[in-house]
Amino acid sequence: MAPWGERLAGVRGVLLDISGVLYDSGAGGGTAIAGSVEAVARLKGSRLKVRFCTNESQKSRAELVGQLRRLGFDISEGEVTAPAPAACQILKERGLRPYLLIHDGVRSEFDQIDTSNPNCVVIADAGESFSYQNMNNAFQVLMELENPVLISLGKGRYYKETSGLMLDVGPYMKALEYACGIKAEVVGKPSPEFFKSALQAIGVEAHQVVVAQACNPSTLGGRDGWITRSGDRDHPG
Amino acid sequence: MAPWGERLAGVRGVLLDISGVLYDSGAGGGTAIAGSVEAVARLKGSRLKVRFCTNESQKSRAELVGQLRRLGFDISEGEVTAPAPAACQILKERGLRPYLLIHDGVRSEFDQIDTSNPNCVVIADAGESFSYQNMNNAFQVLMELENPVLISLGKGRYYKETSGLMLDVGPYMKALEYACGIKAEVVGKPSPEFFKSALQAIGVEAHQVVVAQACNPSTLGGRDGWITRSGDRDHPG
Repeated sequence: MAPWGERLAGVRGVLLDISGVLYDSGAGGGTAIAGSVEAVARLKGSRLKVRFCTNESQKSRAELVGQLRRLGFDISEGEVTAPAPAACQILKERGLRPYLLIHDGVRSEFDQIDTSNPNCVVIADAGESFSYQNMNNAFQVLMELENPVLISLGKGRYYKETSGLMLDVGPYMKALEYACGIKAEVVGKPSPEFFKSALQAIGVEAHQVVVAQACNPSTLGGRDGWITRSGDRDHPG
Repeated sequence: MAPWGERLAGVRGVLLDISGVLYDSGAGGGTAIAGSVEAVARLKGSRLKVRFCTNESQKSRAELVGQLRRLGFDISEGEVTAPAPAACQILKERGLRPYLLIHDGVRSEFDQIDTSNPNCVVIADAGESFSYQNMNNAFQVLMELENPVLISLGKGRYYKETSGLMLDVGPYMKALEYACGIKAEVVGKPSPEFFKSALQAIGVEAHQVVVAQACNPSTLGGRDGWITRSGDRDHPG
């Protein structure tokens, strides 16, 4: 691998993950990760284009940004690429009416979506709303469809809250895939389309960007973020 | 495939599934499937050895047998091979103390099991007890273990209740497998050990038995059972 100086030549933009990179979510709005408020400020003061690229699907962008601003971050709604708005675009384009298995906090992002007589399921990090009843409702909708469509906002295994590790949407996506014998469409990371839309928003090419992403906390025994040059992997995860 | 007469020569025993073959579970104790009470009586009056072999894991054997007797079946607890007692034997043999993610109805089967300071997870068809909180508890137990052990009582995708299709334990097993990056040990069908223990109970060899098993109702659009000669497949499912 080339040395850092060489590898960073030509970099024009930065994609910043939010949970695990800027802050750890949790009770009372979570806590900023040490140094991250200052790092964002420095990046935004530099020549680099900055885009926040998150799989957060428990909150609307407005709520997420409000929370981060209260923690001291310089961030606005228009700077955030998040899976719920991307999913809404897909639903509209394809005439899909979802059964929403989502957290109440993100429901407002779907205000303009027709949810009558569902012909697909959208699943997100629903937290406590992942009840047996709600999972079974989603399952029954899918089993009634001739061509079942399951859209998953991300496929993360788990994330870290201040209180400990929490199951993310991925395990529940896998549960419905297995129950129905289908494959979900993932909107959000690691989908290449999702990264592309974030890059388009800042007018930067894939080979010109650096991605700062949370590591799997169990792997490193800590919350260390990792940074990768976009070309390093097909699908930064 | 050989004609039926020829294929049944040498058959000495019958393994009967319960849910979907003898009855459909549901409100008020479920309903017997037409002709099944008489079929069981005829089989038990014949020269064939009969064993009931179920993946039922929402009820104790005592409760299940009581329910079936009320529906008119000639069945006793000692004639039933079920996954909870098989799991208890494994837990004792291996010194495992489970976190139990199970239905309250089957908890009495685990009365003799030490559940303090868990070093494994046992998951069964927990129904409404598959809350996010309980799933997250199981997940956190597994993530704390150096060698995580997940024992699943069956791995069925779903089953039919009188009110409709219901998610079975399999999807939730898959969810925990994905979350933790592990593979569950399945106790119950289609595990060969489970079938072997049912055969041992009636002193019949695998090539001498016929298995009557519920079909996937969505596949056939009905509740038709299927009958297979044990040698037809490696793991009658």
